Amino acid sequence: MKTGQLTSNKNPLLKDVRRAIARGSLTTEGFCIAETFHLLEEALRSDCFIHTVITAESVRSTVEAHVKGLREINLVRVPDELFAEISATESSQGVMALVRPPAWEIDHVFRGQSLVVIIDGLQDPGNAGAILRAAEAFGATGVLFLRGSVSPYNPKAIRASAGSVFRLPMVTSFDESIACATLEQKRIDVYAAMPEGLRSLTEIDLRRRCALVIGSEGRGVSTRLRSIAEDLRIPTAKVESLNAAMAAGILLYEASRQRQLPA
Amino acid sequence: MKTGQLTSNKNPLLKDVRRAIARGSLTTEGFCIAETFHLLEEALRSDCFIHTVITAESVRSTVEAHVKGLREINLVRVPDELFAEISATESSQGVMALVRPPAWEIDHVFRGQSLVVIIDGLQDPGNAGAILRAAEAFGATGVLFLRGSVSPYNPKAIRASAGSVFRLPMVTSFDESIACATLEQKRIDVYAAMPEGLRSLTEIDLRRRCALVIGSEGRGVSTRLRSIAEDLRIPTAKVESLNAAMAAGILLYEASRQRQLPA
Repeated sequence: MKTGQLTSNKNPLLKDVRRAIARGSLTTEGFCIAETFHLLEEALRSDCFIHTVITAESVRSTVEAHVKGLREINLVRVPDELFAEISATESSQGVMALVRPPAWEIDHVFRGQSLVVIIDGLQDPGNAGAILRAAEAFGATGVLFLRGSVSPYNPKAIRASAGSVFRLPMVTSFDESIACATLEQKRIDVYAAMPEGLRSLTEIDLRRRCALVIGSEGRGVSTRLRSIAEDLRIPTAKVESLNAAMAAGILLYEASRQRQLPA
Repeated sequence: MKTGQLTSNKNPLLKDVRRAIARGSLTTEGFCIAETFHLLEEALRSDCFIHTVITAESVRSTVEAHVKGLREINLVRVPDELFAEISATESSQGVMALVRPPAWEIDHVFRGQSLVVIIDGLQDPGNAGAILRAAEAFGATGVLFLRGSVSPYNPKAIRASAGSVFRLPMVTSFDESIACATLEQKRIDVYAAMPEGLRSLTEIDLRRRCALVIGSEGRGVSTRLRSIAEDLRIPTAKVESLNAAMAAGILLYEASRQRQLPA
């Protein structure tokens, strides 16, 4: 392990980290920022390359124990006050890893008996992370983030994903037209959950290769995608009664339930 | 409508509101604090008594339009800076209603073909609100908050509930021993979702009168409740892969799905 110490908030590395947190994106060198010991462990268990681990002085020995034996990792110590200033969380644990997310291709997302989530304009990073977590839990093959949606590498999304972001195939900033053409050519059934959708979720065969479109919290699913999607309704006592992450989780559960039924 | 203006943050009403927000609880007079125009509308549509509406000066005319014709409501104007100081949200809409939540009895929660959610130690108000919203959506008869859990009247929980808090029967700060005795006497099937539960959710008959226990984010379900509950497992690709609100939403969806199947 290579160690160093930084004490100025003007240091280029720390400035880059702060910018990535403020923008909710990757650093200029393409690293995502994983805070908390839990996410550091998830990153270490995954095959992702960890470039640097930043530690607050007060938890230095704990962090060192986590990365012991990794000779090529950079361990950077910063004073506690400086760490708190950089951190994206109010009650920080004093540890932050710069992780290179896996590079996935679109074919990874659609591999096998496709069960794909398409994120179309969703803005809330907590919702995005919860959807990634549910997608992995219920065996989705991958997630496609269309251009204009929140980044799954937003530090808040990474935290809400509980590490799924390091394992689940996903492609970001994907072009909507190419997405529509891809879905058509691969003959994927496309569904969009709409409060007034005619068919109920329980009537739809989700064992077939399919994609589930999750629109933005405000304006829903785009016109372009709706034109190639079939509307479906989650049967609830009143309309518009679930948030985007909950709706996605229930669609994914239902798909997983159907896929586990005896053929 | 009775109108007034407050300009000091030392005013007793504003101090009481701030205390309730900081504690995540009701005001000393038993009002809950509903921020945003959407929640004001939900409160107006419900049968709840609205004691006071606080408005930032800049949105005064919009707020007045919302409460027009209500002669007994107090409308209190405060300067924008003061409103921002009091508000629980970072990007406030400048409106806050003090609402008396409905008084429910335990028998309301268990009425008819009981489908009850028991909140056992959950701490996150966003999760609590999302669970209320899903509980209403999937036809739960009510929610029981055991002592030591987050209050459903925490302003963040109210917001995440999207108004369900004004309509769904619920009892708060309920004693655990009395809860266990009630469940036994009413012959309610009790289930607790556990990552290692033996029976899968899909094998369980949720059409019967039942209660679903949602434990805290950290320590799970209490020993006492586990002793009277049957463990169940949400079938996922990996264990411990859903957050508390998502798990609750999926249990409720599955109960609702089963209850809508032809008998």
